[in-house]
Amino acid sequence: MNVVPTSENGSPPVYREIAEEIRALIRSGQYADGDRLPGENTIMESHGVARATARQALSVLINEGLAVAVRGSGIYVRLFRPVRRHGARRLSKELWGNGRAIWQTDGADRAYRVDDLRVEEAAAREHVARVLDLEEGAGVLRRSRRYLVEDRPVQTAVSFLPLALLVEHADHPAARSIRSQDTGPGGIYARLSELGMAPVHFTEEIRVRMPTPEESGELHLAAGTPVLEVARTALASEHRPVEFNQITMDGSAYVLQYDFEA
Amino acid sequence: MNVVPTSENGSPPVYREIAEEIRALIRSGQYADGDRLPGENTIMESHGVARATARQALSVLINEGLAVAVRGSGIYVRLFRPVRRHGARRLSKELWGNGRAIWQTDGADRAYRVDDLRVEEAAAREHVARVLDLEEGAGVLRRSRRYLVEDRPVQTAVSFLPLALLVEHADHPAARSIRSQDTGPGGIYARLSELGMAPVHFTEEIRVRMPTPEESGELHLAAGTPVLEVARTALASEHRPVEFNQITMDGSAYVLQYDFEA
Repeated sequence: MNVVPTSENGSPPVYREIAEEIRALIRSGQYADGDRLPGENTIMESHGVARATARQALSVLINEGLAVAVRGSGIYVRLFRPVRRHGARRLSKELWGNGRAIWQTDGADRAYRVDDLRVEEAAAREHVARVLDLEEGAGVLRRSRRYLVEDRPVQTAVSFLPLALLVEHADHPAARSIRSQDTGPGGIYARLSELGMAPVHFTEEIRVRMPTPEESGELHLAAGTPVLEVARTALASEHRPVEFNQITMDGSAYVLQYDFEA
Repeated sequence: MNVVPTSENGSPPVYREIAEEIRALIRSGQYADGDRLPGENTIMESHGVARATARQALSVLINEGLAVAVRGSGIYVRLFRPVRRHGARRLSKELWGNGRAIWQTDGADRAYRVDDLRVEEAAAREHVARVLDLEEGAGVLRRSRRYLVEDRPVQTAVSFLPLALLVEHADHPAARSIRSQDTGPGGIYARLSELGMAPVHFTEEIRVRMPTPEESGELHLAAGTPVLEVARTALASEHRPVEFNQITMDGSAYVLQYDFEA
């Protein structure tokens, strides 16, 4: 357990004062995105402090996601403008009903690029089966992909649909599209509508945690960056679950917004 | 930047296999909440590995929030059942309109306890002023508090209301209640309704980051625990902002749920 660090006279410790000083210079734009920050040696000299103090000051900024350490080179300002992801609005029928992929509405200014798209059949594991109302081991269609913004990987998403639902409509072009790499305008929600299973209700559950080593690799996460996990369930009428999506986001790259009426 | 760690033959490195083994024992209940996990020495002996490997294995579990290191004592399973916080439902008019505090609806099984409640007048800083549509430095009522569940601090919240709004209705009992420690049944939203300024729309913005040292202290965060920041704005009719609330949550203690229609 940590305690609030204060020096003996109750004022903040020196490393925090130094961090605050550098933070102010970043916020005011004197250090711009990508600029190299003063290193430990420079801070030691300019502030007359020990190396440990200089290092702590820089660690504060790294932990806040304002700076990133590049091995063997130094510490750099990292100001990636977070992607604003609108919960309710993004998934509203007007959007995907009009043939827009839900992701296009996230920051109309910055396009998502998708890579590592994989579509395959799989056996539902326990929690996927539970959410989709299937027997454990039942067939699911698994669509996984990674999203990049400005060439930076920002999230991975693994979507599961009950395979039975697609087999039922095997000769419908919409069912074939859902099994293709390119699901067509409006994506799988538009195709599900064409199959008479339009999603009418969404539930999103959000958790936060530190990444696994695999996630750090896939999302190129800097040390000390948490991930956001969004588990989304899409229900068609009569509470029929039609999709479950496990989304893992670089926590420093997103602001999630939800709007609702009282 | 991290890369996915694999050993030369492509299988996961030994420390991850050991972590997975212990994780499985926790998930299956063989190590229960609060149990002490095998230490570095035990793992070195039982698995024939170096100390660094044993330490890495335990770090994986700590980073995932499944275990917590207690200085000078060992590493313990920490299974705190997260609090489920319902976005839209929790703030719906039916709840606070019936005289329920919004927090009572979070996990009906576990009560929140509030401490460090402070009510004071303050000058609005830049971002609070912007959200509340005030001049910078304008008067605001600042209500701050900490919430505990099972004696564990889980979140702090600092709420701001335009002071002018309360001065306008200075002789109304509801305005006096909003300035009191105990705001009465239904809390400030019920009192704002009585003043003709019932919130009709809420926006919540969610970010995640590593905590500041102060936050680690206030929330008793274990090392490697991120915080969730929820910034909530309450708007009355005609888009009039009536409250801004900055909520900081122990990221390991919460699941945020949002439900919405397509």
